[in-house]
Amino acid sequence: MADKQKKMVESITSMDEDFAKWYTDICKKAELIEYTSVKGCMVIRPYGYAIWENIQRILDSMFKELGHENVCMPMFIPESLLQKEKDHVEGFAPECAWVTMGGDEKLEERLCVRPTSETLFCEHFKNVVHSYRDLPKLYNQWVSVVRWEKTTRPFLRSREFLWQEGHTLHATAQEAVEETERMLNVYADFCRDYLAMPVIKGQKTDSDKFAGAERTYCIEALMHDGKALQAATSHYFGDGFARAFEIQFSDRENKLCYPHQTSWGATTRLIGAVIMTHGDDNGLVLPPAVAPVQVMVVPVAQHKAGVLDRAHELTAELKKICRAKIDDSDNSPGWKFAEYEMKGVPVRVEIGPKDIEMNQCVVVTRHNREKCVVPLDKISEIIPQKLSEVHAGIYQKALENMQRRTYCCKSTDEIIKVLNENGDGFVKAMWCGSEECEDKVKEITGVGSRCIPFDEEEISEKCVCCGKPARHMLYWGKAY
Amino acid sequence: MADKQKKMVESITSMDEDFAKWYTDICKKAELIEYTSVKGCMVIRPYGYAIWENIQRILDSMFKELGHENVCMPMFIPESLLQKEKDHVEGFAPECAWVTMGGDEKLEERLCVRPTSETLFCEHFKNVVHSYRDLPKLYNQWVSVVRWEKTTRPFLRSREFLWQEGHTLHATAQEAVEETERMLNVYADFCRDYLAMPVIKGQKTDSDKFAGAERTYCIEALMHDGKALQAATSHYFGDGFARAFEIQFSDRENKLCYPHQTSWGATTRLIGAVIMTHGDDNGLVLPPAVAPVQVMVVPVAQHKAGVLDRAHELTAELKKICRAKIDDSDNSPGWKFAEYEMKGVPVRVEIGPKDIEMNQCVVVTRHNREKCVVPLDKISEIIPQKLSEVHAGIYQKALENMQRRTYCCKSTDEIIKVLNENGDGFVKAMWCGSEECEDKVKEITGVGSRCIPFDEEEISEKCVCCGKPARHMLYWGKAY
Repeated sequence: MADKQKKMVESITSMDEDFAKWYTDICKKAELIEYTSVKGCMVIRPYGYAIWENIQRILDSMFKELGHENVCMPMFIPESLLQKEKDHVEGFAPECAWVTMGGDEKLEERLCVRPTSETLFCEHFKNVVHSYRDLPKLYNQWVSVVRWEKTTRPFLRSREFLWQEGHTLHATAQEAVEETERMLNVYADFCRDYLAMPVIKGQKTDSDKFAGAERTYCIEALMHDGKALQAATSHYFGDGFARAFEIQFSDRENKLCYPHQTSWGATTRLIGAVIMTHGDDNGLVLPPAVAPVQVMVVPVAQHKAGVLDRAHELTAELKKICRAKIDDSDNSPGWKFAEYEMKGVPVRVEIGPKDIEMNQCVVVTRHNREKCVVPLDKISEIIPQKLSEVHAGIYQKALENMQRRTYCCKSTDEIIKVLNENGDGFVKAMWCGSEECEDKVKEITGVGSRCIPFDEEEISEKCVCCGKPARHMLYWGKAY
Repeated sequence: MADKQKKMVESITSMDEDFAKWYTDICKKAELIEYTSVKGCMVIRPYGYAIWENIQRILDSMFKELGHENVCMPMFIPESLLQKEKDHVEGFAPECAWVTMGGDEKLEERLCVRPTSETLFCEHFKNVVHSYRDLPKLYNQWVSVVRWEKTTRPFLRSREFLWQEGHTLHATAQEAVEETERMLNVYADFCRDYLAMPVIKGQKTDSDKFAGAERTYCIEALMHDGKALQAATSHYFGDGFARAFEIQFSDRENKLCYPHQTSWGATTRLIGAVIMTHGDDNGLVLPPAVAPVQVMVVPVAQHKAGVLDRAHELTAELKKICRAKIDDSDNSPGWKFAEYEMKGVPVRVEIGPKDIEMNQCVVVTRHNREKCVVPLDKISEIIPQKLSEVHAGIYQKALENMQRRTYCCKSTDEIIKVLNENGDGFVKAMWCGSEECEDKVKEITGVGSRCIPFDEEEISEKCVCCGKPARHMLYWGKAY
């Protein structure tokens, strides 16, 4: 292609027209992913992977701060090991990928590619935990797992995805429950403070628990289109796995006991959540904390004497305080503006001959496209403020979206009516506690139970479905 | 177990008695790994994984410094994709693990778990590279790969191992060759500066090339027992893969061209190399740059008033300048000394009541067990010096081992004699360039070709085997 034929930034489908198409357009055009010939698996491209690296770095340090250590388990699980815990195998076997051949030889026992690693951790715990002195074990690993999903979408549901899985073992049930809650709070804090994403903390109903868990806690976020997204989970296992795997330790009185266990995980799904929480019709909007590039410097009229030099100087100064980059390619400024809006770079700095003359530059925040003129000698002060503004601004917008789209309902008819009138969202409604009503609400209204929130309210005294006395308030919604 | 029954540090097999047993003893007793029920796969435990995290962090920043970006490809390769490059599939198919079932369904096409990812990167490059403006692509990924080995050993040869694989695409052959060499130098520098491990840089003979490569460069290290270990490789592919995968770009003259490609990798094998280069009969000896704990503070007579407080204060001070930790458990100081020698902590600091009285502490370097008394107010100055001393000391020892065990030979008889008299090591000997002689030397003497070093010497004018004119000097040796 000749030098003059510049790639133009292609526009994307508008959110209101087709949210699903808008989503995949962003995944592709912001260069986050690319499809592959392996159905349901994707390439995470440099720009997408850099977001994941930022998520990893921050979460990893939060985990380590609390005493967790990283390990690495094998990616394969022998079928017999997976089968040791009954509920667990029932939940996962149907979606396992099975290795049956090694080289030219058929394996004696087939191996599944880990869909999750509780069984491997249990086998290991049995080997290394003997005394109360060996507890707690606070382990985590950053790996990929495989679940043979039928329908897949980038980041949201893929056959292979990246995640971290924490696995901990404790002397008492209380300690394990505390850990389960602590880690859910870590996820919620992370979403709020780094992804600018408000979430509801709660507990899954029994029908929605992780296979083998006694309790599953979750955080639920509301996407721009009013659908819910489970952003992370934290499970309390009691001593069920310990009994199945015969993990025992001698306590201070030299008595053999079963330890109590947890696991918790967050995945590349968080990137999907970021896209659908903050994005707009111009593309991605990235929270500054995880944006690969926080500030993009765009020289204007860069062929004029002194512009590039001054722009590079400015970039060097910005690099000391944030992840800054310059685009000095020969694409037009207009093309660059559109490109970095598409890529969701939180702050753009424009600098041209007139700006230099007046010792200033133009600072544009991505989320609201507001421009302001900043004296060059104040830039190191202003940029951190602007990044904070972006974070606060997109958090506020997401919170308002969630609040506007959260409805209290007292009957299934009301649920149907409210959603029809206002579009999808969270429905707060009471529940008697029976799986039957849970299923029926979903059947009648289309919204399933998301969680019993930690902060329950009393919307009414009766179950939204059967009218019997309510036991819990539930959040309901359509979900990704 | 009762409080008083303390685990005693178990001794390990001596190196001279049984080097292989010594090695696995260290892997287990320094708590680097644990075996699993998945044959040939291991758990990398927190202490072992922390070494890998340090290796990752350092190498990753060296890669990024040179402009490489991280990505993530799927872990599966469809059989038809693997088959696109003839030599490549021949080399790898025999050791692939094959997924044939997804859930309950037989797959239409079986998928191998990546043994390496050239084919996936090629498929991706074909999608994203169109113009000279898209080049070079400098990609890397940190993942695990699977090769169905028959015999396995922790870190050295396992069915699954962790690694990074760099994959780059360039407009010209020259650029690609430069990249191949550049990355080999990065590995060699990393081994010298961070692992304190001297290496020989060279090129593999044709029979030893990576499947599909035009040239394979490698670094070869010499272990304590005189066996060689290939510590990293860097491959130049020419445009062979590009042709097989039909990757083309239009150059500045708008002409369609095939790009040139490289790949390069280093694995958890480096941890095995560290063990066998620096370890001794008391256990592991870790290079300070990758040691999870660089300084372990051991309080002496810690029940006495003020000792623990002062020891914690000292630890806090040390944490500002290095990875320091305190062991204030109720194990005896003697037990702790042995434990952290086993774990290869580079520097130990002892502090007891008398030390405190005299405002001093005792500093012991792991590699030579030398003690010195250091005034407490000088500790922040002395510790970095001590860490440098450990690095320099173990590098020197490894270099001397390599030099002492490197022999120049002019005939196969001489090779046999020298190795018999002195034990295993590197043999420098001339070679005519024929695969026949390469095989014959191995058959007769037991040592295979390791590499043609970048710095060749002229040991003689004739091939060590056939006596015909020599084309190259080779390093020969038994290898892990």
